Amino acid sequence: MRVYLDCWPCFLRQALSAARRAGAPPGLQRAVLVETMAELRTLAADATPPEMGERIHRLVRERTQVSDPYRAAKREATARAMALLPTLRARVDAAADPLETAVRIAIAGNIIDYGVAESFDLEATLERVLHATPAIDAFPALRQALQRVDAVLYLADNAGETVFDRVLIERLPVPVRYAVKAGPVLNDATREEAIAAGLDQVAELIDTGCDAMGAPLALCSPDFRGRFERASLIIAKGQANYETLSGVDAPICFLLQAKCTVIAEDIGVAPGSVIIEASDRLRTVGGSVG
Amino acid sequence: MRVYLDCWPCFLRQALSAARRAGAPPGLQRAVLVETMAELRTLAADATPPEMGERIHRLVRERTQVSDPYRAAKREATARAMALLPTLRARVDAAADPLETAVRIAIAGNIIDYGVAESFDLEATLERVLHATPAIDAFPALRQALQRVDAVLYLADNAGETVFDRVLIERLPVPVRYAVKAGPVLNDATREEAIAAGLDQVAELIDTGCDAMGAPLALCSPDFRGRFERASLIIAKGQANYETLSGVDAPICFLLQAKCTVIAEDIGVAPGSVIIEASDRLRTVGGSVG
Repeated sequence: MRVYLDCWPCFLRQALSAARRAGAPPGLQRAVLVETMAELRTLAADATPPEMGERIHRLVRERTQVSDPYRAAKREATARAMALLPTLRARVDAAADPLETAVRIAIAGNIIDYGVAESFDLEATLERVLHATPAIDAFPALRQALQRVDAVLYLADNAGETVFDRVLIERLPVPVRYAVKAGPVLNDATREEAIAAGLDQVAELIDTGCDAMGAPLALCSPDFRGRFERASLIIAKGQANYETLSGVDAPICFLLQAKCTVIAEDIGVAPGSVIIEASDRLRTVGGSVG
Repeated sequence: MRVYLDCWPCFLRQALSAARRAGAPPGLQRAVLVETMAELRTLAADATPPEMGERIHRLVRERTQVSDPYRAAKREATARAMALLPTLRARVDAAADPLETAVRIAIAGNIIDYGVAESFDLEATLERVLHATPAIDAFPALRQALQRVDAVLYLADNAGETVFDRVLIERLPVPVRYAVKAGPVLNDATREEAIAAGLDQVAELIDTGCDAMGAPLALCSPDFRGRFERASLIIAKGQANYETLSGVDAPICFLLQAKCTVIAEDIGVAPGSVIIEASDRLRTVGGSVG
């Protein structure tokens, strides 16, 4: 997905929020906005939102000399989600279809996203996502694929959302490699936040080799690219992974909420929709072996 | 109130929306955003939001050669409000305190504002405002002043909101001059929209002499300024009138909802608050004669 004009106001809002989280005084906040506007003016027509987001967050880190403006927000989100962990596990245990409920829970966790909004209601989102009819529902293909593969590459999204991922990973029948960012960007999970959420207890932690949003393969490390290319099933969480990988030929299952109106329109669903989307490769593999 | 950095994203959103309403193709929409960013970069530190808004809407009108991009939106808002007119009058008739209910209704109509959001729920807002406790409540001072003056200068805000103003004006015990904008800006009411809402049947229509948002006196006509200076009671509707007149020494009662978070913070109230605020002059006059 390319950057739409509707994204411009949102990028300014995000830049201002990041600068404030980094403790920038008003003059520096203004300078960050002015530089963000210059970036927007010169942005290539085919640039994706995660590419622009990465520029903004790099700019804020450089100008403020704060390496991780979202550290406090990430810790708080992880703590809030960890407090829900027993409830989330109990919901899965009590479910008629534990795997499907665990997938829904992982999608509910995707509401933790400081790129889209400054606050979120975890409990309300959980109930909404557990009871929603997905606008795109490739869960059968995901279930089928899980019976045929011997490992899963799981692409993480945000800190706190990690806890919801853990609930799903605990229900997966095969070993999982959990890929986080190699450095801070927005509130995306790095190794530090994954460990705080206990992901190291249920998966092998790896990273994308870069601090880009999503998983733009050209920027990722050769090691990550190798794992990505050899994976027989990839679960990709959230908007940025969707935006950077939706055109890539690989066996991917995207789990996300279409939180912003622009991405929802681009996908052709209502804002807030629950999406379980299988790539062509995943659908083909699922069909051929099912 | 000056322009805050938080207003910058909102101005970009408003510029894009106005350009689209004017039928601008994507390339021109982008050009309008680029020019809006240039305006923001060079904006004086003490500029008010209505001043910046005026620049944006002038820019859109000039670049698109569409004199009134909000014409359709203004007609639709007026039609929706006119459909509610019998209900609004019945609410006033049935009220224990008809004047207070009429004031609340006028404030409810202030939700019609394409500067703040792209849509609104008139009925839900009406119920909310009728039952809300105002965050600032100078209604007693307004009631008292109305008993002492022989005319009211009423500063209009948006098309459609005019119908709600009409319900209040029908209850005022003295003649009213209703001041609209002299030319189109955003969805502000001009003479055309005031007549469509029947304001000419209940008040003498005048205009500010300019197409600026709110009532920046330096830009208004000498005729309007004279009426403003001679008025013994001014009722000023909405955010833009508040933003341009809150520092002016005149007997003003501001009726508005603090719809955006920036203005709410500036005033020191919760977003969405109902505000009935008397200027110092109005309070003094009310006190000295009460």
